[in-house]
Amino acid sequence: MTNQPEAIKRLSLPELTGRLGMSVRDAERELENAPALPGPLLDATYADTHRFPPPKWALPTFVEAAGGGGMTYTPYRGDREVREAVAHNVSTGLGIPATGASDVILTPGTQGALFTALAAILSPGDLVLLPDPDYLSTERMLRYFGARVKRIPMLWPQDGSRPTLDLQALEEAAAEGPRLMVFSHPNNPTGAIYGPETIAAIAAAAVRHDFTVIADELYCRLVYEGEEFHHLAAVEGMAERTVTLLGPSKTESLSGYRLGVAVAPTALVGDMEDVQSCTALRAPAYAQHLLARWIAEDGDFLRQRLVEYQALRDTTVKKINASSVMRVDAAYGTAYLFPRVLTGAGDQAVALALKEHAGVVVNPGYQFGLAGSGHMRLCFAQDEAVWDAALDRIIDVVGSVDPT
Amino acid sequence: MTNQPEAIKRLSLPELTGRLGMSVRDAERELENAPALPGPLLDATYADTHRFPPPKWALPTFVEAAGGGGMTYTPYRGDREVREAVAHNVSTGLGIPATGASDVILTPGTQGALFTALAAILSPGDLVLLPDPDYLSTERMLRYFGARVKRIPMLWPQDGSRPTLDLQALEEAAAEGPRLMVFSHPNNPTGAIYGPETIAAIAAAAVRHDFTVIADELYCRLVYEGEEFHHLAAVEGMAERTVTLLGPSKTESLSGYRLGVAVAPTALVGDMEDVQSCTALRAPAYAQHLLARWIAEDGDFLRQRLVEYQALRDTTVKKINASSVMRVDAAYGTAYLFPRVLTGAGDQAVALALKEHAGVVVNPGYQFGLAGSGHMRLCFAQDEAVWDAALDRIIDVVGSVDPT
Repeated sequence: MTNQPEAIKRLSLPELTGRLGMSVRDAERELENAPALPGPLLDATYADTHRFPPPKWALPTFVEAAGGGGMTYTPYRGDREVREAVAHNVSTGLGIPATGASDVILTPGTQGALFTALAAILSPGDLVLLPDPDYLSTERMLRYFGARVKRIPMLWPQDGSRPTLDLQALEEAAAEGPRLMVFSHPNNPTGAIYGPETIAAIAAAAVRHDFTVIADELYCRLVYEGEEFHHLAAVEGMAERTVTLLGPSKTESLSGYRLGVAVAPTALVGDMEDVQSCTALRAPAYAQHLLARWIAEDGDFLRQRLVEYQALRDTTVKKINASSVMRVDAAYGTAYLFPRVLTGAGDQAVALALKEHAGVVVNPGYQFGLAGSGHMRLCFAQDEAVWDAALDRIIDVVGSVDPT
Repeated sequence: MTNQPEAIKRLSLPELTGRLGMSVRDAERELENAPALPGPLLDATYADTHRFPPPKWALPTFVEAAGGGGMTYTPYRGDREVREAVAHNVSTGLGIPATGASDVILTPGTQGALFTALAAILSPGDLVLLPDPDYLSTERMLRYFGARVKRIPMLWPQDGSRPTLDLQALEEAAAEGPRLMVFSHPNNPTGAIYGPETIAAIAAAAVRHDFTVIADELYCRLVYEGEEFHHLAAVEGMAERTVTLLGPSKTESLSGYRLGVAVAPTALVGDMEDVQSCTALRAPAYAQHLLARWIAEDGDFLRQRLVEYQALRDTTVKKINASSVMRVDAAYGTAYLFPRVLTGAGDQAVALALKEHAGVVVNPGYQFGLAGSGHMRLCFAQDEAVWDAALDRIIDVVGSVDPT
């Protein structure tokens, strides 16, 4: 398009054209428009919310609000009573320090929280640290804002010890004066959960080199086998420099309501609100009321979900690792697995073949960073029988794709 | 805040500090935090959606979608079938040329449509034309994107002829090579509707000087006395350079669902979608289904609403013009009136006094541009008895504020 703004061009990550033969965005569109196996397509890029529906109170709460019991217009940052409830529930229920409504902003999806936080923090040219691999749209957004991105390798030792970051690389990059670090935790796409020493190292680097951290903890309730989860904001001295992103879109299957939450220092919440007054005005007003019940009233729901997801995780890991074409580390959390293809086939070629010949849509690994190449992200939160059959097709088709 | 990005600073319009004694955003916050008359506050910055609720099919349509009948995840630009329905309904029902789903993007509110359109079009330093007065957040957003803003005076002749723009000022500004013109039509805050010759002049300038136009037509169905409405995009040669912003938040009282629509050239829709993949992913998925019935199934609803709003407009105009403290031109469309205070009292002082002593929140005129100074915007879509009493209080309190 004539006069296309540079920011829009950067958003497509054209710098990866050399590797992919096209920009990341064009590769996504190629996959979107590619031929599919006739019949129903299984989209394994997200959960099946029919098999795994939201908590039972969700829709009635919306109906009550939209039927006259709720506000149609709220402050841009969200209804005050809902924000107070969220502050209380995330601090007592999750252990994320929120002192009250003024530390909380409600957003249109957790994506909205990430965007407004980045907009409120970043200036063009700022250096930002980001694990590799990490959430697919973060690097694109960072480039949109004109930031320079430095990837920090994630390490997943094969001796049974916990995943971590390359802490020496982190320290070296931190010494270059970043404005910000962004990381998803649990890690999207791998499901890694970092131990307390990794979280402490991030905190120490942030304090020593005076940068802000966005901890994208969208999946922090989706943690298996009683795994302990360490919130960065709960580390001494970090609440004042951490934005914690949360929301009910994934674990609670409420993505269709477009709700997200950020817990952040009060002044930053004010700037995020100013951005939100431009981007969307507010999180959908009637749906905001659901957030007052979130965490507080879904304990049984969560316990059952974790049992079912963990069973799906276990059967998926077992099946993949029994194959000769892929290997995968069991996710500590999230509803994702990030298997590596052993055959040498390229990840875009594999994704195209899976859509055309297995009837399954996956996220090719390059979307998550260079370290993701040769992998694919699978969301295993699917109907069990459908998923079991799909996994067989996936393994068959992966084996049939020629190495690049 | 340390390191606050320049874009965030610009968003507050600090250049107006000389006139207001503070930035526009700080003035807004002053009003937000100012003392209010005890008892229920009447917020006349928007419509009372309890008195004027949405069409009856709205909530059941949402419930069906959220209860399992709708998609939880859609393409970022919105569900294809809904976009097809919207394209059909806006072209046959409103006369806005949309050739099909590829010209349409669904957004979180019409605000979301404005943001993604600006992001997809503007580069820092671009010149943008904007009527004075016009929608309160447009100039702030333009400054956020680093654009230079040139205001084009709106003219409202007192001889009974139609409101228009200062066409000579438009032509001179157009000759300076703007990238874009943005205008609300019907005009927010005044309710002006431009005649065909004004729309033709805008189109001619855009073609001659090769710029894009965003026509914010959020209120285009809210038009009184059978007034004809001329869509810019329907002018020969303009569909390819016009973004038309629409949505059901106002006339149809669906703001609480966060839905908006843009009709734009296909390539621009693609870039807007890329931006939306960052800002919010998509319009709330279940709510999207409401847009398939919008326009197609609300004819009777709209006719009744227009009768009721027109009656409110007429009584409000009569009462204001019978007072000795304010004068107002009858809006051709929208649910707003933009009276001028005759006493010489400043608009922030008037707004603060109205909140404290009349229990009414209004938008002070400076929010809409320099030409708005000395005015206030009133949304008259209120319960009739409540509004009648509020108007008496407004007139009393305005008369009591000292001139600046």
